[in-house]
Amino acid sequence: MTPLPRTGLGVDVHAYAAEGSDRELWLGGLRWPGERPLAGHSDADVAAHAAADALFSAAGIGDLGTHFGTSDPVWAGAAGATLLAEAARRVRAAGFEIGNVAVQVIGNRPKVGPRRAEAEAALTAAAGAPVSLSATTTDGLGLTGRGEGVAAIATALVAPVAAG
Amino acid sequence: MTPLPRTGLGVDVHAYAAEGSDRELWLGGLRWPGERPLAGHSDADVAAHAAADALFSAAGIGDLGTHFGTSDPVWAGAAGATLLAEAARRVRAAGFEIGNVAVQVIGNRPKVGPRRAEAEAALTAAAGAPVSLSATTTDGLGLTGRGEGVAAIATALVAPVAAG
Amino acid sequence: MTPLPRTGLGVDVHAYAAEGSDRELWLGGLRWPGERPLAGHSDADVAAHAAADALFSAAGIGDLGTHFGTSDPVWAGAAGATLLAEAARRVRAAGFEIGNVAVQVIGNRPKVGPRRAEAEAALTAAAGAPVSLSATTTDGLGLTGRGEGVAAIATALVAPVAAG
Repeated sequence: MTPLPRTGLGVDVHAYAAEGSDRELWLGGLRWPGERPLAGHSDADVAAHAAADALFSAAGIGDLGTHFGTSDPVWAGAAGATLLAEAARRVRAAGFEIGNVAVQVIGNRPKVGPRRAEAEAALTAAAGAPVSLSATTTDGLGLTGRGEGVAAIATALVAPVAAG
Repeated sequence: MTPLPRTGLGVDVHAYAAEGSDRELWLGGLRWPGERPLAGHSDADVAAHAAADALFSAAGIGDLGTHFGTSDPVWAGAAGATLLAEAARRVRAAGFEIGNVAVQVIGNRPKVGPRRAEAEAALTAAAGAPVSLSATTTDGLGLTGRGEGVAAIATALVAPVAAG
Repeated sequence: MTPLPRTGLGVDVHAYAAEGSDRELWLGGLRWPGERPLAGHSDADVAAHAAADALFSAAGIGDLGTHFGTSDPVWAGAAGATLLAEAARRVRAAGFEIGNVAVQVIGNRPKVGPRRAEAEAALTAAAGAPVSLSATTTDGLGLTGRGEGVAAIATALVAPVAAG
């Protein structure tokens, strides 16, 4: 009998950086020149972080904090796409095949649509499996609607690799 | 080897309409007479919209904005169930079988339970695949707990159709 | 042809109890001595509740309110792990095998990491299937970032059991 695949999910939220910050916005593995940056110890790429967390969650091997804790200098300041690639490597090393990851960005800015294909290509290359990226807004409500920050939510499907 | 199925998700939020609005509440493909309506360019059916977005997300073919942008007059004012049916058609046209969609409505009102079966039937008919509808509240917290609006979150599972 | 598995999800939010409350924090099937408790009619175990709701959602058999309504004295005050075990039993009785459940806790406190393995063991024992538990924060934003409460979001995968 083929074992069932496993599903997982991940959420990430970052606040916009203060006015005058010299940070740049990173989202979906891309740099967004001219867009208001997000704050954080990392590059604050909520889409890549949520995707990585969804993979860990599906495989049942902890989360971003476990694997890339802010106290670990190796990963301090690492790009979101780098973390996603390493997460995918660890999930495979734990015995899973990655089916897909689907990420939705929730926020007013940036507008994801015009660069969706480019971001999906970057995230898919990082994960080594299809990553889809969608976007929505919250009608002016909540932390994203008030423009305080950007959220992302992701789900992933993985399957245990049959023993040889 | 059978290809793995794919998972996806979608979130939608609409604010309640202002007092005295002549709109009606649409949720889960149903009209809710006497319930406070939600605002929006569309019918503001957060459950149907989240379900459609979850299908697009799972198939990796964009999102509601891509397919039914507010600038496209064909879909302006379309019912949520109509958008869900069209989303399901486009997902199938892209080569996927739809397994199921699961939607959770998050908000104080309306109470979904008494009309759950009716709403599930409407959404299932629209999608041509099983759609489940659940509901929860947030203990008075956040945008839904304060009664500012209603949110919905959905997940979907699709599978690539084997070439003939 | 093997029928497709089904995915589902569940969200739960509880506010922290008022200062001086004699409640205790329950989360992920565990008691957390010394941690600020959550309020609620139940034990307010958002992780266990979200997991149970994800199972109901995937199976399409209603939600926590349907099954364990606050008006039903049998379940009043029941532990979250007890509800999760009963939810898993009902999902199996409805004809489904449970693949896995993945839960993410969203909040500032408690820190889940140090007791993740213990909580996963408790939830996995309750569900009779693998339950993973991850955690994240929201960068000081929203109801969880402001420390008003704790949220959990879960996804589950189930599959219809073939008729014998």
